[in-house]
Amino acid sequence: MFMTLTPYQSTATFGPNYRQVEVGQVVDLVPEKPFCLDGGLCIASLPVAYQTYGTLNAAKSNAILVCHGLTGDQYAASTHPVTGKPGWWERMIGPEKPIDTNRYFVIAVNVIGGCMGSWGPKSVDPATGKPYGLNFPVITIADMVRAQVALIDAMGIDKLFAVIGGSMGGMLALTWASLFPKRVFAAMPIATAARHSAQNIAFHEIGRQAIMADPDWRDGNYHHHNTYPAKGLAVARMTAHVTYVSQTALSKKFGRDLQGKDAVSFGFDADFQVESYLHHQGRSFVERFDPNAYLYITRAMDYFDLAADHHGNLSAAFHKTPVRFCVVSFSSDWCFPTAESREIVRALNAVAANVSFAEVRTSKGHDAFLLDVPRFHRIADGFLTGCARVAGLL
Amino acid sequence: MFMTLTPYQSTATFGPNYRQVEVGQVVDLVPEKPFCLDGGLCIASLPVAYQTYGTLNAAKSNAILVCHGLTGDQYAASTHPVTGKPGWWERMIGPEKPIDTNRYFVIAVNVIGGCMGSWGPKSVDPATGKPYGLNFPVITIADMVRAQVALIDAMGIDKLFAVIGGSMGGMLALTWASLFPKRVFAAMPIATAARHSAQNIAFHEIGRQAIMADPDWRDGNYHHHNTYPAKGLAVARMTAHVTYVSQTALSKKFGRDLQGKDAVSFGFDADFQVESYLHHQGRSFVERFDPNAYLYITRAMDYFDLAADHHGNLSAAFHKTPVRFCVVSFSSDWCFPTAESREIVRALNAVAANVSFAEVRTSKGHDAFLLDVPRFHRIADGFLTGCARVAGLL
Repeated sequence: MFMTLTPYQSTATFGPNYRQVEVGQVVDLVPEKPFCLDGGLCIASLPVAYQTYGTLNAAKSNAILVCHGLTGDQYAASTHPVTGKPGWWERMIGPEKPIDTNRYFVIAVNVIGGCMGSWGPKSVDPATGKPYGLNFPVITIADMVRAQVALIDAMGIDKLFAVIGGSMGGMLALTWASLFPKRVFAAMPIATAARHSAQNIAFHEIGRQAIMADPDWRDGNYHHHNTYPAKGLAVARMTAHVTYVSQTALSKKFGRDLQGKDAVSFGFDADFQVESYLHHQGRSFVERFDPNAYLYITRAMDYFDLAADHHGNLSAAFHKTPVRFCVVSFSSDWCFPTAESREIVRALNAVAANVSFAEVRTSKGHDAFLLDVPRFHRIADGFLTGCARVAGLL
Repeated sequence: MFMTLTPYQSTATFGPNYRQVEVGQVVDLVPEKPFCLDGGLCIASLPVAYQTYGTLNAAKSNAILVCHGLTGDQYAASTHPVTGKPGWWERMIGPEKPIDTNRYFVIAVNVIGGCMGSWGPKSVDPATGKPYGLNFPVITIADMVRAQVALIDAMGIDKLFAVIGGSMGGMLALTWASLFPKRVFAAMPIATAARHSAQNIAFHEIGRQAIMADPDWRDGNYHHHNTYPAKGLAVARMTAHVTYVSQTALSKKFGRDLQGKDAVSFGFDADFQVESYLHHQGRSFVERFDPNAYLYITRAMDYFDLAADHHGNLSAAFHKTPVRFCVVSFSSDWCFPTAESREIVRALNAVAANVSFAEVRTSKGHDAFLLDVPRFHRIADGFLTGCARVAGLL
């Protein structure tokens, strides 16, 4: 089916030891017209890494694009080649799961700016023969979407049955619906917002400052110097991670429980389980994620403001949209609170769009879209099944 | 009045340039019995820095102890000698203000573990003749309180009219009431908790990791090496600062407004005002605060759990308390949410304590206790005036 897609580099380096890992399906996309970024730069071709699950039907009408969050990748429903862990959305994608691979053809694409094989700051700059580092252009959510459009063009898919994503993935889903309304039948933006809030920009900036403060970052050129800003990246991850869980979830899971000891140590090693947990989050992230990619992707999220291109009128971004929407938020998500989903719904209502909305009550915080939250899974299943009937897939 | 208190060192060094600054009134306290810390170490004497406002009456019955938060100090109501800025609680303390210096004698003490003249990691270790650094003992909130007790002993004050503080200062106020109920007439714990939550421990640990990840920290011996972990400390401050303001306040104040430009720069300099604001918070903090002191004070807060000494029964910490309490929380405070104040109130109610409680509706977040929130000021005024009548001060 993808014979026209040329295999490209299939390895990338990971972690402080620069381990080489196969990253799966990667193609070098050569769009008909040069690929122009919002920042102005135009390029002739770009590598894009993706994984697919299920089978594309003859009419090429059953494709669902799954968009990942900040630190996710194309390994949505298969074992991650770096960590060896299950895919990040195996609860959602698979036979008889909400994104049913018996029915749908699922495409998961590593965003450009990322580090799992798609064009990003770790890619080799043809001008120098070395990784781009900070010479990589700052990209936007719309740039990420346009790279995905180029991929489905190459696959010969004219219209996606659905585009679905949580957090940053929800920003991509909204952008698909706004920029390419005729190429999406249904969109499901989850735990997301139409613009990145001041508080989220603040937390992202703290993460970036932590990375850039690490002397091993070397102005972004750690690859040239064979150093690695592991400590800075770990601090960035720890900060972000706290925002992904709810206060309640942290209290329930850890409270003030001590880590393998009966009393506090009167020192600065991890006394509390919540500290050990955070250290683990930091350490394991460092093994799989590129520090510069973290800078670029957080920046793209910060720049995201779907209304900005429409003089601040979010409704105008969806004028006469034919797309069917299902907007989902989680009650304990303080990173992308329900109020921000309601803004999206109000804007869609104002243009009489076909939209349903659900706030799922859960104490699991922002990360709820990745976790075992049956009600959320039933909502996704119901929405997709309903849309599949209308689209003639069932 | 304080003739018996021996002046001690009155200067300390601040910031990356190790600037010498006079820190005001500092005395070397020599308690009758050695001063023993919760961690086990006992010492013969310790320097304590403080400021006073108003006049102590002949009966020595009108003293109010004001306890500062994590990064506060004794300059509650007078110009800060390092920053040149007004005291951190000038809205609250002064003639005809809620803590009325025409009526009350106000004592503000720099906590031990701090960096404004009281015994802390920046103090000279007599064993080595150099700053303690990480050889300073880990201390607790109760240790801080016992140092304050030693100070008021030296002042000849038997009983405080009131002890008041916000955030960590509220932890000190609760500890005073719990450990020394006969030496406090009234207590006002504001925007605080009886135990530090998992989420707050997590954010503190991120700050500590940021400081300790900075190679200029040198395992806490930056003073010996003439280096300074300014970048790490700035990241720690930025992280904490975001938790002190509400999502609403950040959105209202900055939204997505750009900093002195019409469009985003497609780079990693500060594009958004919220980024510039955070950078400023980080930079100015570095000039006035000691990185090791930040480690020690955050650790003391993490260790705080008033119920732990009473088999988890918070009420038992206040058994038969004669102290009059006024507990205050702020509706938009997500660092010390109202639920944690309610826990204190419930525990006090369970032992039939004299307690009033107010949740002040405001969008100003945790920092509201430092800001212009008239309703909070009226509550403080009302509580103190009422207590002053009962205590025979009016």
